Order: sequence, then structure tokens, then C-alpha cells
Amino acid sequence: MKLLIINGPNLNLLGKREPEVYGSLSFEKYLETLREQYPETVLDYYQSNIEGEIITTIQQADGVYKGIILNAGAYTHTSIGIADAIKAIQAPVVEVHISNTFSRETFRHQSFISPVASGIIIGFGLEGYGLAVRYFI
Amino acid sequence: MKLLIINGPNLNLLGKREPEVYGSLSFEKYLETLREQYPETVLDYYQSNIEGEIITTIQQADGVYKGIILNAGAYTHTSIGIADAIKAIQAPVVEVHISNTFSRETFRHQSFISPVASGIIIGFGLEGYGLAVRYFI
Amino acid sequence: MKLLIINGPNLNLLGKREPEVYGSLSFEKYLETLREQYPETVLDYYQSNIEGEIITTIQQADGVYKGIILNAGAYTHTSIGIADAIKAIQAPVVEVHISNTFSRETFRHQSFISPVASGIIIGFGLEGYGLAVRYFI
Amino acid sequence: MKLLIINGPNLNLLGKREPEVYGSLSFEKYLETLREQYPETVLDYYQSNIEGEIITTIQQADGVYKGIILNAGAYTHTSIGIADAIKAIQAPVVEVHISNTFSRETFRHQSFISPVASGIIIGFGLEGYGLAVRYFI
Amino acid sequence: MKLLIINGPNLNLLGKREPEVYGSLSFEKYLETLREQYPETVLDYYQSNIEGEIITTIQQADGVYKGIILNAGAYTHTSIGIADAIKAIQAPVVEVHISNTFSRETFRHQSFISPVASGIIIGFGLEGYGLAVRYFI
Amino acid sequence: MKLLIINGPNLNLLGKREPEVYGSLSFEKYLETLREQYPETVLDYYQSNIEGEIITTIQQADGVYKGIILNAGAYTHTSIGIADAIKAIQAPVVEVHISNTFSRETFRHQSFISPVASGIIIGFGLEGYGLAVRYFI
Amino acid sequence: MKLLIINGPNLNLLGKREPEVYGSLSFEKYLETLREQYPETVLDYYQSNIEGEIITTIQQADGVYKGIILNAGAYTHTSIGIADAIKAIQAPVVEVHISNTFSRETFRHQSFISPVASGIIIGFGLEGYGLAVRYFI
Amino acid sequence: MKLLIINGPNLNLLGKREPEVYGSLSFEKYLETLREQYPETVLDYYQSNIEGEIITTIQQADGVYKGIILNAGAYTHTSIGIADAIKAIQAPVVEVHISNTFSRETFRHQSFISPVASGIIIGFGLEGYGLAVRYFI
Amino acid sequence: MKLLIINGPNLNLLGKREPEVYGSLSFEKYLETLREQYPETVLDYYQSNIEGEIITTIQQADGVYKGIILNAGAYTHTSIGIADAIKAIQAPVVEVHISNTFSRETFRHQSFISPVASGIIIGFGLEGYGLAVRYFI
Amino acid sequence: MKLLIINGPNLNLLGKREPEVYGSLSFEKYLETLREQYPETVLDYYQSNIEGEIITTIQQADGVYKGIILNAGAYTHTSIGIADAIKAIQAPVVEVHISNTFSRETFRHQSFISPVASGIIIGFGLEGYGLAVRYFI
Amino acid sequence: MKLLIINGPNLNLLGKREPEVYGSLSFEKYLETLREQYPETVLDYYQSNIEGEIITTIQQADGVYKGIILNAGAYTHTSIGIADAIKAIQAPVVEVHISNTFSRETFRHQSFISPVASGIIIGFGLEGYGLAVRYFI
Amino acid sequence: MKLLIINGPNLNLLGKREPEVYGSLSFEKYLETLREQYPETVLDYYQSNIEGEIITTIQQADGVYKGIILNAGAYTHTSIGIADAIKAIQAPVVEVHISNTFSRETFRHQSFISPVASGIIIGFGLEGYGLAVRYFI
Repeated sequence: MKLLIINGPNLNLLGKREPEVYGSLSFEKYLETLREQYPETVLDYYQSNIEGEIITTIQQADGVYKGIILNAGAYTHTSIGIADAIKAIQAPVVEVHISNTFSRETFRHQSFISPVASGIIIGFGLEGYGLAVRYFI
Repeated sequence: MKLLIINGPNLNLLGKREPEVYGSLSFEKYLETLREQYPETVLDYYQSNIEGEIITTIQQADGVYKGIILNAGAYTHTSIGIADAIKAIQAPVVEVHISNTFSRETFRHQSFISPVASGIIIGFGLEGYGLAVRYFI
Repeated sequence: MKLLIINGPNLNLLGKREPEVYGSLSFEKYLETLREQYPETVLDYYQSNIEGEIITTIQQADGVYKGIILNAGAYTHTSIGIADAIKAIQAPVVEVHISNTFSRETFRHQSFISPVASGIIIGFGLEGYGLAVRYFI
Repeated sequence: MKLLIINGPNLNLLGKREPEVYGSLSFEKYLETLREQYPETVLDYYQSNIEGEIITTIQQADGVYKGIILNAGAYTHTSIGIADAIKAIQAPVVEVHISNTFSRETFRHQSFISPVASGIIIGFGLEGYGLAVRYFI
Repeated sequence: MKLLIINGPNLNLLGKREPEVYGSLSFEKYLETLREQYPETVLDYYQSNIEGEIITTIQQADGVYKGIILNAGAYTHTSIGIADAIKAIQAPVVEVHISNTFSRETFRHQSFISPVASGIIIGFGLEGYGLAVRYFI
Repeated sequence: MKLLIINGPNLNLLGKREPEVYGSLSFEKYLETLREQYPETVLDYYQSNIEGEIITTIQQADGVYKGIILNAGAYTHTSIGIADAIKAIQAPVVEVHISNTFSRETFRHQSFISPVASGIIIGFGLEGYGLAVRYFI
Repeated sequence: MKLLIINGPNLNLLGKREPEVYGSLSFEKYLETLREQYPETVLDYYQSNIEGEIITTIQQADGVYKGIILNAGAYTHTSIGIADAIKAIQAPVVEVHISNTFSRETFRHQSFISPVASGIIIGFGLEGYGLAVRYFI
Repeated sequence: MKLLIINGPNLNLLGKREPEVYGSLSFEKYLETLREQYPETVLDYYQSNIEGEIITTIQQADGVYKGIILNAGAYTHTSIGIADAIKAIQAPVVEVHISNTFSRETFRHQSFISPVASGIIIGFGLEGYGLAVRYFI
Repeated sequence: MKLLIINGPNLNLLGKREPEVYGSLSFEKYLETLREQYPETVLDYYQSNIEGEIITTIQQADGVYKGIILNAGAYTHTSIGIADAIKAIQAPVVEVHISNTFSRETFRHQSFISPVASGIIIGFGLEGYGLAVRYFI
Repeated sequence: MKLLIINGPNLNLLGKREPEVYGSLSFEKYLETLREQYPETVLDYYQSNIEGEIITTIQQADGVYKGIILNAGAYTHTSIGIADAIKAIQAPVVEVHISNTFSRETFRHQSFISPVASGIIIGFGLEGYGLAVRYFI
Repeated sequence: MKLLIINGPNLNLLGKREPEVYGSLSFEKYLETLREQYPETVLDYYQSNIEGEIITTIQQADGVYKGIILNAGAYTHTSIGIADAIKAIQAPVVEVHISNTFSRETFRHQSFISPVASGIIIGFGLEGYGLAVRYFI
Repeated sequence: MKLLIINGPNLNLLGKREPEVYGSLSFEKYLETLREQYPETVLDYYQSNIEGEIITTIQQADGVYKGIILNAGAYTHTSIGIADAIKAIQAPVVEVHISNTFSRETFRHQSFISPVASGIIIGFGLEGYGLAVRYFI
């Protein structure tokens, strides 16, 4: 089974950015652990700071991956385009957030992605990605 | 490890209530499967239609259970009292919703529980409870 | 034909509470008249101040009564749980209010029950219950 | 006893307009049944698509009819003038809606007429007019 | 000098309608006094309950009258069409209200006419019309 | 093919009213050009300042015309009744506005007609009617 | 008869301040004309930029003047204290604005004074004061 | 003199719950001190996590107690039913909050109880109950 | 112990202003009683209608008085400056209102002072000042 | 004459994406028909999922094309940058939407582009592009 | 060149008030440094806690100073009168705030002064005044 | 000292775009002057129309530049991602706007960047960049 993990803007800084919110582990390191935990699953990874590239990646993942695990970062709260891309494809998309977005600023409480996601996992730290993988299995 | 699953109002009707939204499996049946899947974990279960009884149960669970898995149903969107109970105790609480609350009526988009939950799992059907158990393990 | 009349919080005080708004007749007295008027109909009556007990009563009425006449009182404006119970059952529910809720405080203008009710009768005093019985006949 | 039934805009199309919402019976046909049911009551009927004509009709009904049964249709949600006319006369006005306005678009949830109506009957189909007649008797 | 006084819906009931708000003098009687007070001014009078007729009357008054004194009644708060008619003509329009609209219901606080009126006179009872005539002189 | 063009309030003043917004050509003159351009199409024309007459005209056009081109003027922003009439008939209705309503006052940004229109053409001046005719052909 | 005219902040600049909005006549000059026009009336005048001094002046005018003509300037839109002073005294207060506040910024559309004023005169330029004097006579 | 103190949800945890907000003294201990301070006053105490039980207790206190001191906790912000009960009885009710609700979350700023309370005491810690007792004496 | 009582705008009219809301006792008379009741406490008193003078007085009270009892009157709802002054000093400030501000106009429900006050006492009439003194003792 | 058609995010999926909303024809196919229909017009085409690239393309089109036909897709509702680019250039821009955005989600009702567009064509399916081309001719 | 620096309410406490927000340097001390830095510029200074005095000072500065540097403190967010004074004069006004008002309470995000200021400098601490002086030079 | 100036969308058109708002000087020309004025400071410059590229540039500037001067153009009002990037790095960011955003459209009044900026400079034209450079020195 092939899954695609997509991370949005500033998530390339994980481990360095606001460690009191996001922890001090880089995503690459976490991904290694995850791949060890699920050796039979192909876990591809894509990160971009550009909204349109995330849209394109979601479009191209359709038919290739069984599912997408998407943490759209800041675009979660403003991007109708990413939500439209999710609606346009067949593959299910699980929305993940590392921190508890509902205990932060009000503008982080709204997600354009949630209504079109197959499932939503929020606030478990990096473990949220693991739970999403688990769900697909 | 002992975990307490608390279900709120109308969730006693699972399997009968709006099956196109909630599926046709009763929670009791699902719980059996879950207990088989995690034999080493004690999974206690409590359901009530009364907000105040849920508050009391959360209070009393503190110190007894390692964690609480809470689907407060309709009280999710209106109960400050349940949120206060969660803040008042030490045990972590994972919020679960069976359906995708964000693709339903607007009044289901707000949760008083989310800001004080340790993690939030939405829209995976009954599998959401299983992911929550997984998280505690 | 069996009908169930459910009254919510503070409606046990009818005849005593704010008589300029609700009149000076107790509900029990009114019920006697109603039963005399419709002798061929079984008119059962339940009152509770507890939201969760009203939810439970609605659930249990399904399959037993041909219809429910519900004045949820203050819970009308705040209870998603009662509305969910109505959606979860087959029996039709007629919403009744004694006073004209739309000529009172703004917070009484919103009803979570109205969108899921089979019909709504507002502002006819106690006669509203009679019109609801009439409708079922 | 004389009652006046006033129907607002597009209600002249009853039976033809959106039958899944309003049913397939024309109002004229329904009125025949109603008159048979209450032979001792004079049931006059007026329909207009013009807000100002409805205002004039309400004004002129005062002193002539014992009560008015008003379904102002779309003007329900926008006409302060009709509400002012109701306040300006002595005859009681019962507001009727065929469909459940609260389970439709948000702009149909507000009624300028409700706060000044003697009673409100919503969602019973054409039977709502019958309940209103019943109330006056 | 010729002036046109236009009264909107329900103002034909002046003297009969809610006398505690609008007084017990009919407009016709008041107009007699006003004409006596300003014998050198032609004071024409038009009343209609129909929004579109008021629009037409405003259009036709242009070039005929030196000014219009308009109490649009309930249409004040909802009619963009009357405001557009005022903008479309050259003759200045003075907006008059008998009662103090700002000490009544919130929906009477907004006027589509005020932004396009040459002047606004509110709350002086019928004397407001007299002040408006005075202004034109 | 027969088409009906309906113009709402104040559009009878086209060419005279606010020429910097609406241009200096009367609608009658424009209609001549349009009829010359599409000689094989019957282009009937109706204008009224009265909301209810526009509703009636839309109702009666059904079955007679292949389509309606509607510029409801100020009623665009307030008339639920016109929108209901459009929903009640089979003939498609194209909404046209001469000026760009979105670059004018905020209250002109909302249209009750748009959600039920077959298509919407805004801001092309009188040419918008021509584009609508073109669409039907 | 004694009347007190009170002008609020920046109205001491009349004739100098934004002449395209307020005209080029100073208030002192206008007052001279007004006094000549109404020789039998004592027209006292007070201006202050300080909210609290206007409150004190209103309080002290009670019992001394038959009426107050108040243009509270910018405090119109923010001062609950001035409105409270008006409610606290017996003398009637007429609210005057030189420009049409409703065709200016949105924050000038709200007046705390209007609901407690005996009458409101807006948009007639300096002539508004004259109309107010006229009203008291 | 007999007074009834009613505490709402989670106030049974006083001394244990969020001590930085509510202090570390249990209510029972505080009540002892209070009773010593006012030996001539009967101070009865009731706590419940269930909204409906608080409603019932308020109803039953009428005629028995000279006054009620009510800290409805989280229900303060959502319970119309408790407010209705207060309006339905004769005994005066003083609303007390231990913490300063206005310096906490926005949803704690609204109280359905305040408009119907005889007096409101907020932010004095447990001493607020003492001030309320003092008031009744 | 020295305490400073500060009253805001229009409170100099106590006993004369709207006696049905504020009672008929002047503050000076009430202060005499209060001083007799607490002979060992110095109760200084300051009243001003000017926002800025109240700010200055609060600033200067710091270090001189053990506490301030503040009824800012109308400035309660609009003055950020008074709230800033309270935050800028060390002395605790108790906010007092004579009437129940929450059962009056909506604009009286918001207080800029409450979030920075040490405690809030509302609706006890003049007795509220006494309770505040009591609290400091 | 040269025109540039610009399509925004996810419009590269036309024919595949939500065919019940957007139809099953790809844009490339439609463009062929359009070019055949208007052989004398150069119809260049650009599509991008990236907001900034659309901005750049609009900037560069100025002086090269006589007009731009823009369907900005999801960016319509969120991109101030695209609207700024339109204002910054001389070439007129016609806004096109395939589906009726006003009968879909509320967030699709707002367009930052509409206020700065030369004209707006909504809801005609792919034919909307053709009408826009027609307009430029 | 002569410049006038105006500070609003509570800014007389700089150095003492909330030093974690405003620093521990008094404004007088800072002004000395500033005058040394710009010896060729006359830097006059005025502080008041009274809104109306600030208005008067702005009015009187016109024609005397080349520019005004204004930190209106709390009045920034509520004073339409100060904004009107700025519009009424010719001298340019630069708005300065010491702290970052946008990272503080929501009510500090709105400024009535910003729309009429020549320039705005926020969040640089006392250095903001220096940058404003620099701008005038 | 090295500083990085980042300009957002459409600022590449400075000098050409809406010169009445932004002036007729290109940024490149202005930059030359600025570099001459501060010869000892390295002033690097980056412009992009793509939100994600601005995010990346901010990330990469950390550790390389002593400070960033950011005019995010239209993204100021919509980009949470740029704000997150600023929070994620150590280097201080000064927000600059050429025009007075607060005297333009309402949607330009909100800035996601302001709350996380070290300082904000608005409305000084291109001189704003110079003041920001000055601040860093």
C-alpha cells in the first residue's frame, strides 16, 4: 500500500520552529521511525510552502496512492483551492494537525479542509501522522 | 491500563439512529471487537443522556483511569460544564466524533471540548474510538 | 390512538409562574379538559426539568405513541440533544409554545427543535396543545 | 362568524409550484373542503402578489371579520408594512405557513409578522389553515 | 411654490392607528391647518400602500414640484427602489417621521432614504411636516 | 423563439437617471437595435415599478416564452417573492445588471435572484441584455 | 422664552473646518441672523470640546431653559453620558446635525442621543438650528 | 432568617480544581467559617452538576428561604431554564462568581442569570458568598 | 484605613435623576450613613463628569488610598482610558453599579472596567458601596 | 484581436472534476470549438494552480492582449493580489464562472475580483467563456 | 522647524505604568535625548488625560507647528472628536504607538485616528517618536 | 550590517501601478537613493508575487540578515503562512506599507503580519522603507 504525506508551509522547519508548540523533532527523523513501524507500507513525503504546488500534488496523487495524509499548515484556514482539489479526486484524505488548533488563535479554528476530509486528527503531536497511517491500514 | 469511554446523548441509539450518518452497528457490538483487539487494556464504558451525570463521571474517573475517550454528542457544542470538568482533572481526555461534524450543520462546528482536549479524532466512524485507544497505548 | 405530551423545565409551575405570560390555569387542570374533549385518544403526560430525561423519554416513546406533543420550554433554545432525539425516532413531534416566543427576548426566537418538528404551534396559550391533538386526529 | 384568509405572493400557484414542498392540491380545492367542514363559518379568501394590496386588505378587514388567517408568503420575511397593518387593527391575525420555514433557507427563519400575530401555525401543510379556523371557533 | 407630500403604507390610518405612538389627528385634518398656515404654497398630497406607486409618484413629481416631503413609513427601512427614485430625480426630498424611530424597534433605525435625502426630520409628531414646509420656504 | 425582457423599478428612467452610472441611452432605443440584430427572435418587453406585478408577469410568462431576461433593479436585493416566482416556473431566467453592482454600495452585493437564476450577466452596460439574448440562441 | 444652543467638539471651527461639508459661515455669524429672526427669544450659546462639560451644562440648563438645541458633534456617536444627562433632566432636547450624517462614514450613523431626543433634525446645514428654534416656538 | 446557597457544576471540586483560579479552600470548610460568622442565620447548602436539579431546587426554595445565593457555574452562561426558574419565584436571588468571569474566556462574559438577579457579586473569591449573606442581613 | 469613592458622570444627580432606576436618596446623604457605619475608615469622595479627571484622580490615589470604589457611570461602557489607569496603579479597584446594568440597554452590558477590577458589585442600589467598603475591611 | 483566457486552480481538471457541477467536457476540447467559432480572434490560454503565477500572467498580458477572460477558481474568493493586479493594468478583465457560485457554499458568494472586473458572467457553464469572447468582439 | 508632540491619557505615567509593556524610561527623560539628537528642531510637548483638551490643542497647533506627533493613548480607539480635529486642520499628524497595539486586546486594533493620519508608526517603543521626528525632517 | 527588503505581489509594478496611490517612482530607483543614503549597510532586495516563495525567503533570511523589512502587499491581509514564518525565525521583521491602508478598503485594515512584527510603519510612501532602515541602525 502506498500513502502520500503532504506537509504545508513552515512545516519544513519542524524541530526548529516554536519548539514549545511543535516539539523539537524534525519531520524527517519522525518519518524514519514511522517507516520502521510500518515496513510494508510505502510512505512518500512531499512538503511545499506554495499553495498551488500542494494543489497540483494532490491532483497528481489520485490513482497513484491509496490515501493522502495532509497537514496543510497555515493554508488549512484560508485555502479553498486545496479543499477543491480534495473534492476533485477519488483518494481519501486525512487531515492532521500537530498542535491543538482549537486552543490557539481564533483564525486557526476554521478549516476549509475539514468538511471534505475523510477524517480529522488534531493535537496528538507528530503521533497524529502515525494514527492516520494506522487508519489506512 | 484502564481507559473509560464516555458517550453522550443519543449515542445509546447507535445502530438505530440515522444509520446513513452513524452506521448500523450498535456501540455494544463495536466495543466487543475493540476489547478483543486490545485484550490487555480495560475498556470501561459509560453512556448518559444527562449532561450533569457526564460531568460527575468525568470527575470520578480522575485517578482511576489513565485516560478518557469522550464523545459528548450534542453536548459537545453547548456544554461549558463538561469542558470545565475536563480542565479540573488530571487524566487526559481524547475527543471523538463518529461523523464528520464539519460537513454537517454549522452549530456542530463549534466544540467547547476541543480547546481542553488532549487530542481530537473526527469522522472515522466507530474506528475513531479504536484510534483513541491506540493513542493511549 | 396514543399521544404523549412532554413539557420541559418550569412548565410544572404553570398557573403559578408569571401568570401574565402563561395564564393562571395549571397544566393538570387543562389536561382534564383536553381528555374530556378527546375521550377516544389516550393522552399521556410527562414533565421534567432535566434535559437528559426529556431525551430519554422521547427515545422511549418511539413505537409506543403515534405522536409526541413537545413543549421543551427553555431547552427549546439551547438543546441540540433533544433535536437529535427527535431526528433519531420515527414518531412525528409537534412543537408547542404557550406564549408568543417571537414577541419576547431575542434568545427565545431561536429553536433547535423547529427544523426537525413535523409542525409548530406558537402563541395560542394552552389551546396550542389542543390544536396539536386535533392535528394528530 | 366571518373569517378572512389572505394568501401572499406565489400562493396562487399552489398545486403547481414546487409540489415536493407545497403539495399538489390547489388552494381553491382545499378551500372547498374547508368550507364543507365548517359550514357555519363564512370563509372569505383573498390572494395578491402585491405587498401594498395585502396591507390595504388587512386594513379594510378590520371591523368586518372576526379574525384573519394570513400566509404572507415571501413578504413574511421582509414586510414591515404588513406587520404595521396588523398592529394598526383590532382583529386578531393568525400566521400560517404551509411548509416548515425553519428547515428551509436561513432568510425564511425571520418573520416580521410573528411578533404581532395572535398565534403561529407552521409546517402542517394546507391543514394549517384548518387548525387556524378551528382556533377561531 | 408647489410642494408634494407623500405618505407611505398605513399612514392613511393616522388618527386611528396606535394613537399612543402617532396621535389621534387624521392627516387630512392636519393638512387643512398646514394649508391655512402657508396659503401661498400649493401643498399636494399623495398616499399609497404600494411601494411601486410611491416610486412612480416620485418620478413624476420631478420638474413639477419644487420639493417633496416624504414619509415612506415602513418602506423607509426596506425600500432601495424608493431611494433609487430619489437619486434619479432633481427635486430635493425631505424625509419626515412622525414618531422617534430611534426609540422604537431596531429594524426602524435603518433608513435607505436618509443617505439620499436633502434633510431629515424625526420625532416631532405631525409638526415635522410643517418644519419641512418651512424649510422649503 | 420568444423571449421576455423584464425591467424592474426606475429602469423606465434609463437614459435620464444617473447617466454616469447607467449611460444616456433609453431602453426603448436600445431595444430597437437589439430587435434589428436578432430579427428572427420575438423580444417582448415589460417594465414595472411594482414588485407584485413583476411576480405576476414572471408567473404568466411560463409556457409562453422560451426564456426570461430579468433586471429586477432594486428588488434584486430585497425580493424573496420574485425569487420564489422564478423557482415556481419552468422557463429559465437570466439575471442582468447594467452597472457593476459589486463596485457600488454593499447592499447591492446581495441578490436573492442569483441563486435561482440560470445565468448571471453583470456590468456590461446595456450590452448585457444582448449577451443574454445571444445565450438563449 | 429662553433656549440654550449647545455645540460639541470641533464645532468652534465652523466656517474654517472642511467647508465643503460644513459651509463657510461661522456659527457666531449665523447666531446673529438667528437672533434677529427671533428677537423675542433668548438664544444662549455654549460650545465645548470636553464631553464632561457638555454633560454639566445640560444638567445646569434644567429649570433655566425651556429647551435645549444640541449638536454634540463627534460625541453624538460615542457618548452615553450625554444621553444619560438628557434623560436625567426635564427640559426637552432637540438633536441637530449640520451635515447628513447618514451619507458619511458608517460610525456617524449611530447616535446615542437620538433615542432620548424630543426631535431630530439632520442635514439642513446651519438652517437646522433655525428649524429647531421654530419648533420650540 | 434562612438562606439557601446553591452551587452549580464542578463547584464540588473547589479546593482541588484549578487552584490558581479558584483557591485551595473547599467550599465545605468555607461554609463552616461563614456559619460561625453569622450564627443567627440558617445557611443551607445544595450542590448539583445537573441543570434540571438546580431548577427544581430553586422552585422548591420559594416560600421556604428568604433568599438564594446562586453560583450556577458553567450553567450561568447557557441556562435559560435556571433564569426562568428565578423569574418564576418570589424569593430574591443573588448571583455570585468566585473568579472574575470578565477577565476569562469570552463565553464566560455572558450570563443569562444576571438580568433576573437581585444583585451580582463577581471576583471576590469565596468572600463573595459572605458579601451576599451580608446583603440579606 | 483610607478608601476613595469615585463617582462618574450624572451620579451627582443621584436622588433627582430617574428615581425609579436610581432611588431618591442623594449620594451625600448616603455617604453620611456609610461614614457612621464605618467610623474607623476614612471614606473620601470624588465626583466628576469628565473622563480625564477621573483618570487623573485614579492615578493620584495610588499610594494614598488602600483601595478605590469606582462607579464610572456611563464611562464604564466606553472608557478604555479609565481601565488603563486602573491597570497602571497598585491599589485595588472595586467596580460598583447601583442599578442592574444587565437588565437595561444592551450597551450597558459591556464594561471595560470589569476585566481589570478586583471585584464587581452590581444591582444592590446604594448598598453596593457599603458591600465594597465591607470587602476592604 | 488577441484575447487571453486565464483559468485558476483545479480548472485543469475540467471534464474530470465533479462532472455534475462542471460538466464532462475538458477545457482544451471546448477551446477548440471556441477557436473555430471565432477564427479571426487569437485566443491564448493559460492555466495555473499558483496564485502568484496568475498575478504575474495578468501583469504581463497588459499591452499584449486587448482583454483578459479570467476564471480565477477558488482564488476568486480569497485573492486580493489578483484583484490588485487587475487594477494595476489597463486591459479590461471579464470574470467568468462555470457554475452558479451563488447557489453553492456561502464562501463562494464573495469575489474580490468582481468589484474590479469590467463585466461578470456566471453560471452559463463553459458557454460563459464564449459570451465573454463575444463581448470583446 | 517646530513640531508638537501630544501624548494622551496615562502616558504621563510612562516609566511607572506596566513597565513590561511600556518600558521604564519616563517620557521627559526620553524627550531630553530626542532634543539633543535634533538640536535644530523645536520639540514642544503636551500631555493631557482629557479628550477635549487634546482636541483643543490640535486645533490651536494649526499654523504654529509644521507637524504634530500624536500618541492619543486609549482615545485612539474611541475618539471620533480627535480624528475630526485632525481633519479640520492643515498640519500633518503622525500617529505613534509605543507598544504593538495589534498584539494586544482586540479593542486596541481599531484606531479612529489612523485613517486621517499622514503616517503611522507602531511598536518601536519610545523610538517611534524619534522616527516620526526624522520623517518631518 | 545586512538587511533584507522583501516586497510582495504587484509591488514589482511600483511607478506604473495606480500612481495616484503609490507614486510614480519605481522601487529600483528608490533603492538606489536608499543605498546611497546608508552606504555602510548592505540592503538586499527580493520581490515575488508568490506567497510560498516569500515564506521560503523569510525562512532562509534567518541567521543571514540582522533584520527584514517586509511589505507583503496583498498577502498582508490574507497570509497566515507568512505570519507563521515570521514567528518561526529569530530575525526581527518590520512591516511597511506605502499607502495608508486604513484609509482604503476595509479588507486592507486587517493584517496577519502586524501582531508578529517588531514594528509597523504605514502611509509614509516609499519613505517608510527608509524609516525602517533607520530603525535598524
